[in-house]
Amino acid sequence: MKKGKLIVISGPSGVGKSTAIHGLMERCPGMYFSVSATTREPRPDEQEGVSYWFKTRQEFQSMITEDAFYEYAEYSGNYYGTPKAPVEERLRQGIDVILDIEPQGAMNVKRLCPEAILVFLTAKDFSIIEARLRGRGDTDEAAITKRLKQARWEYTQAPRYDYIVVNDTPARTVEDIYCILTASKLRAADNLDLLKMEESL
Amino acid sequence: MKKGKLIVISGPSGVGKSTAIHGLMERCPGMYFSVSATTREPRPDEQEGVSYWFKTRQEFQSMITEDAFYEYAEYSGNYYGTPKAPVEERLRQGIDVILDIEPQGAMNVKRLCPEAILVFLTAKDFSIIEARLRGRGDTDEAAITKRLKQARWEYTQAPRYDYIVVNDTPARTVEDIYCILTASKLRAADNLDLLKMEESL
Repeated sequence: MKKGKLIVISGPSGVGKSTAIHGLMERCPGMYFSVSATTREPRPDEQEGVSYWFKTRQEFQSMITEDAFYEYAEYSGNYYGTPKAPVEERLRQGIDVILDIEPQGAMNVKRLCPEAILVFLTAKDFSIIEARLRGRGDTDEAAITKRLKQARWEYTQAPRYDYIVVNDTPARTVEDIYCILTASKLRAADNLDLLKMEESL
Repeated sequence: MKKGKLIVISGPSGVGKSTAIHGLMERCPGMYFSVSATTREPRPDEQEGVSYWFKTRQEFQSMITEDAFYEYAEYSGNYYGTPKAPVEERLRQGIDVILDIEPQGAMNVKRLCPEAILVFLTAKDFSIIEARLRGRGDTDEAAITKRLKQARWEYTQAPRYDYIVVNDTPARTVEDIYCILTASKLRAADNLDLLKMEESL
């Protein structure tokens, strides 16, 4: 059984990662979308293992100690992280796994899992990102400046990715990511077993 | 303007290269299929620059001297070769080019043009190749043995390719090659210009 592929969709906040991933999951129904762990309180509509893996602060810190995360970070007093175990289990089962993480986390994944396929999603024009960041109901100019600065840093990371996809038409973006995933499974180095028929010659 | 991609479809005789290429050309109408040069006499229905570039023996030998071929070979007293100039012109114009060549020629292309994408087409089961080789109206067992030996050698070359595609369902094969081509255009190293929007930050 061949291992599944680990594909990381990353890029600045507001670029449209969630929509692209949603489309890809529809295109490839067998994929597993990696669920994050968090110490934040579950909201009424959130389900364990679907929305998040809900952890106490102590549990989360034990997991950090046990090196159980690909990456983690603290935002507004809560931890968020990408647990390794559920991802690795699916990969072993031959299931492709998709991760939605920020560029800093993406670099950590690549370090721990060099065969991961890193896709940087960008916009056709930066004004689109800016408009989306401004449009999130936060009109505080200082906060927007901070987000733009963050986006700027994230763009500097793009050359370290394997692929860059311009998120212009949603259908095209899904198709591009689908092609990246499909092509990655056809690499000669991973498919030499297909040549075993040579023995029958 | 970005250069076109050079994609080489190769594999043993009888594996279905022509059908796959025909399907790919329909899927990607803008592509250019590289036309071979030959010293063989044109048949009544054959057109210069469509079926072949027809050359005299002297012309062909001059081209060899001028290093004008990616690869060439002599079969049954006639030369056949892949001229560089028409391919390189299309690539410069941003047009993708597809080559249909035998594994030995494919290795020469890779040597001269390292960015070429090499696809080895294989069958689901070797008995399919054998049946097709036998079914070409040549029932001479010695000739068949020779062809099978050639196919065996060609399989040994497959690990040197970039991709291996199993030609099981024709539509799937076309889709796989299309994905390989599409993904190759999305590689980060070739698309850093897409990040120029960073300057607007």
